Amino acid sequence: MELALLYSGGKDSSLAAALLDRFYDVRCVTGSFGLTDDWEHAERAAAEIGFPFERIELDRAVAEEAAERMIADGYPRNGIQRVHEHALETIAERDVDAIADGSRRDDRVPTVSRAQAQSLEDRHDVDYISPLSGFGRHAVDRLVEATFEVEQGPSEQVPKADYEDELRALIAEEHGEETVADVFPDHDQTYVRGRND
Amino acid sequence: MELALLYSGGKDSSLAAALLDRFYDVRCVTGSFGLTDDWEHAERAAAEIGFPFERIELDRAVAEEAAERMIADGYPRNGIQRVHEHALETIAERDVDAIADGSRRDDRVPTVSRAQAQSLEDRHDVDYISPLSGFGRHAVDRLVEATFEVEQGPSEQVPKADYEDELRALIAEEHGEETVADVFPDHDQTYVRGRND
Repeated sequence: MELALLYSGGKDSSLAAALLDRFYDVRCVTGSFGLTDDWEHAERAAAEIGFPFERIELDRAVAEEAAERMIADGYPRNGIQRVHEHALETIAERDVDAIADGSRRDDRVPTVSRAQAQSLEDRHDVDYISPLSGFGRHAVDRLVEATFEVEQGPSEQVPKADYEDELRALIAEEHGEETVADVFPDHDQTYVRGRND
Repeated sequence: MELALLYSGGKDSSLAAALLDRFYDVRCVTGSFGLTDDWEHAERAAAEIGFPFERIELDRAVAEEAAERMIADGYPRNGIQRVHEHALETIAERDVDAIADGSRRDDRVPTVSRAQAQSLEDRHDVDYISPLSGFGRHAVDRLVEATFEVEQGPSEQVPKADYEDELRALIAEEHGEETVADVFPDHDQTYVRGRND
C-alpha cells in the first residue's frame, strides 16, 4: 500500500516514517511554496534514513494568507495550522492509499481533529493516519534516541524544512526581520542526521 | 525497551502488537477477574502471532462495581470504561518502560483522554501508548487484512478475552440471562487466528 507522509526532516516525521514502514510503502513528501530551498534539507534527511522523497508545490496564496494571519495574531500558531491543512489537502490529491503526518499526542499545533480526519478521508477516498498521535513526548524522545542520530539547536541554525522557514522568509521580505522576531519566539529544533539501528 | 500491551486476542490489540514490535519487546497481557477461562483465547492468539503472554489478575470488586453500573445504565459503555482504566492502572504497576492498549481513533469506548494518559505516565513513571489512536477504522481493517488471518462473528460465538465475557458471566450469575441481553446489544467480534505476512 502506498502512503505519502508529510515530511520535514525533523525527528517526529522521521519516526512516523519508521513506524509506518512496517505496513506501507512510505514516500516522504515535503511541501514548498518555492520561497526558499529549505525543502532540500528534508530531501537529504529522507535519503539518510532510506526513504524515497518528493517535493510538492504548495499554493503561494496560502503562504501570504498564513503570514498575514501570523502578523495579525503576533504568534505563528494559526498560520502554521492553515498551511498544514493546505499541505494535507494537497497530498490527499495524490494517487496513494493513505496520507500521514508526524503530529504527536502533546502537540498544540498543527492538530487534526477526529472530524477533520474523517472529512479528509471521505472527500479524498484516502486513509489519514497520524501514527504518533498515541505517543507522548517522552516516548517519542526515547524511540528517536534509539532509532536515529539527531542534531539539536535553535530554530534558525538547524536545517529543516517545516513551513516555518518559508513563512519566516516571506515575512522578512515583506515586513523586515523585526516582524519575524515578533512573531516567532525562540525555540529549539531537531534535524535527523542518520539511523542508529 | 519492555512494553506491556493490554491484549484481548482481537484484531485491534493484535495490530497494536505488530506496530509496536518494531521498537519494543512487546508482552501481551490479558486481565482476568477469574470468573471465566476466556483469557485462554487471548493466550492462544498471542502464541499464534508470536508474542509472549501473561495473565494478570484484576480486582473482583471492580467487576462487581462495573456490572452494577451497566445494569443501572442499561448499556455497557461506562462499566467497560471503568474496567479498562482499572486494567491500565494494574499493568502500569509492572516493571516495564511502557504500557499500551489497542484503542482506535474511532472507538467510543474505552477511551483514554490526553489528561488521563499524562496522569498515568506521571503517577507510574511509565510511557502510555495507544498506537492505533491515529488510525481510523478503514485503515485498521486494511492493515489487519494484510497482516492476520481473522475470524468474524456474533459476540457470543467468537472466542475472545475482552472484559465483556467475564462481565456477561457475572451479570448472568447474579441477575440471569435476560439482564445480560438487556445490557449487551448484538454486535460482531473478531478473533485473530494467525499471521498472513
